[in-house]
Amino acid sequence: MNSINYRIDNLQYCNWSEKIFKINRKAKLDAIHVTIAYHEDFDEVLKNIETWNKYFNDFRDLIFPGKNFKDIEKAHRENKTAVFFGLQNCSPIGDNINLVEEIHELGILFMQLTYNNQSLLATGCYEHTDSGVTRMGKEVIKEMNRLGIVIDMSHSAEKSTIDAINLSTKPIAITHANPSFWFETKRNKSNVVLKALAESGGMIGHSLYPHHLKDKSNCTLKSFCEMIARTADLIGVKHIGIGSDLCTGHPDTVVEWMRNGKWTKTKDYGEGSKENSSFPKQPDWFLDASGFANLEKGLKNIGFNEKETNDILGNNWYNFYKGIKN
Amino acid sequence: MNSINYRIDNLQYCNWSEKIFKINRKAKLDAIHVTIAYHEDFDEVLKNIETWNKYFNDFRDLIFPGKNFKDIEKAHRENKTAVFFGLQNCSPIGDNINLVEEIHELGILFMQLTYNNQSLLATGCYEHTDSGVTRMGKEVIKEMNRLGIVIDMSHSAEKSTIDAINLSTKPIAITHANPSFWFETKRNKSNVVLKALAESGGMIGHSLYPHHLKDKSNCTLKSFCEMIARTADLIGVKHIGIGSDLCTGHPDTVVEWMRNGKWTKTKDYGEGSKENSSFPKQPDWFLDASGFANLEKGLKNIGFNEKETNDILGNNWYNFYKGIKN
Repeated sequence: MNSINYRIDNLQYCNWSEKIFKINRKAKLDAIHVTIAYHEDFDEVLKNIETWNKYFNDFRDLIFPGKNFKDIEKAHRENKTAVFFGLQNCSPIGDNINLVEEIHELGILFMQLTYNNQSLLATGCYEHTDSGVTRMGKEVIKEMNRLGIVIDMSHSAEKSTIDAINLSTKPIAITHANPSFWFETKRNKSNVVLKALAESGGMIGHSLYPHHLKDKSNCTLKSFCEMIARTADLIGVKHIGIGSDLCTGHPDTVVEWMRNGKWTKTKDYGEGSKENSSFPKQPDWFLDASGFANLEKGLKNIGFNEKETNDILGNNWYNFYKGIKN
Repeated sequence: MNSINYRIDNLQYCNWSEKIFKINRKAKLDAIHVTIAYHEDFDEVLKNIETWNKYFNDFRDLIFPGKNFKDIEKAHRENKTAVFFGLQNCSPIGDNINLVEEIHELGILFMQLTYNNQSLLATGCYEHTDSGVTRMGKEVIKEMNRLGIVIDMSHSAEKSTIDAINLSTKPIAITHANPSFWFETKRNKSNVVLKALAESGGMIGHSLYPHHLKDKSNCTLKSFCEMIARTADLIGVKHIGIGSDLCTGHPDTVVEWMRNGKWTKTKDYGEGSKENSSFPKQPDWFLDASGFANLEKGLKNIGFNEKETNDILGNNWYNFYKGIKN
């Protein structure tokens, strides 16, 4: 029945251009989930969406706004890419729970409860201590569940993530991260988190961002695919997708802004260091979405069959999207 | 040398009127610290200050804006009350550390790192778990120290308060709370906190808000003064003042707003309950600032001498204000 295979990259934040949309389509991406805010407030999100509306107008033969899973099917039929909006922070709602419904009306389908720092909702993975989901966080989770906005804990700390999984009545997502059994870093996830995520019907999108990769920019395709195989052994292949975290084409001022926002006067280097503060170089087998073809080969070489490979490269995310609302 | 005795109430949030300013002056209050924000953002603070500027214009024979300790002296000489501004939340700076300098320029002298909930800076006393001062909190403390804004931890949780005391290079304040050895409630403070506060040169302003009082509205003057005496035994009389938390004249919609802000769609009753959600009735010996005369009698009756009584009723806060900047 499911003879159609969807390709989905469930996290990109590129310096958007016709060229990138063409690469995505050439890589057969039926859907991408793109980031609309890292530190932006509500009004800045409106401006970012205005910019996207211009892209949708200018490149209508390549992209259109995605609202739900049917748009993934439509994109596949029409040879376009459906673009789904997400927030990597709760900064756009500030301290106002009523804005959750407003961002939903703007078409936001994913929201992280935290970026790297403590938020009003939960604790980010760069904080020293993790107090879990806060009083406001509990209220916002209820509201996100009611509306059908996916809780994304990619940048959150361990206890907060477990809390979110337990509090949410809907499966949550970790759209872009890797397991820490493969590479230990603040952004990667423990086996405890991965298992709880899968048991609750959630998804992890494996990240291709070098700071999340073993051997960083020198990570091999084989090592990456072995990691996916071990994750599949741990939690089952159905809970695995790709969220590449591609940041193609941005100047280094953008990664500096991602790390520092407006929260500090002392420069923070995040996953980098003073000596190595730039955007890291992508592995040569995943410079952009064309790397999906390499992933396909790599996954098959490591022993995944045709169906499993297609599930990982998009069908699992498609099924997750199908379950988002009601 | 210090023959002048100052009277200071270091926390009031009344429904301001000429009548209240007159009561304050009649009670010989040379200074009050008033709350400019509970949940307000930066622009709303500007509006609240506009309102205050109108009060300063209309009631210039009673009040004027206080900037530093010299204005307490001036108020005393001129038989007026100097009004110092403070924030009971960090909501006005949001996620933008640059706004700390802007609120300082607006004349804000005190800022709580949290109201009752988790903030971007620290944990409030109503949260289940206290992760302490956050990454942004550490940066904001440095900035407050640099500018001379007092860190106020009245509504913060235990670890966060200890962290703030340790991180701040300046003494901090708990402008309105009581010791939990006398009355155990989320807003009152442990001996550990009180001792650390005093050892670092900080001040506690004892609160007259019924939810912080043993026997609440029925608390006796004697019990209150005994509590001050025990606190003085614990931390020394020099670290003790009054921060009455008077909320005279507000309708109950105000306490509902204080508790709920915009963070929840489920009604929160804070220190009250569904059956008892109103502003609590003040004890009959402290209906307003005229109660300072009762406090004076009560403190002397409990055994404080003239000097100690004057220190508690204002001179200690005056000395604290003297040390705020440089």
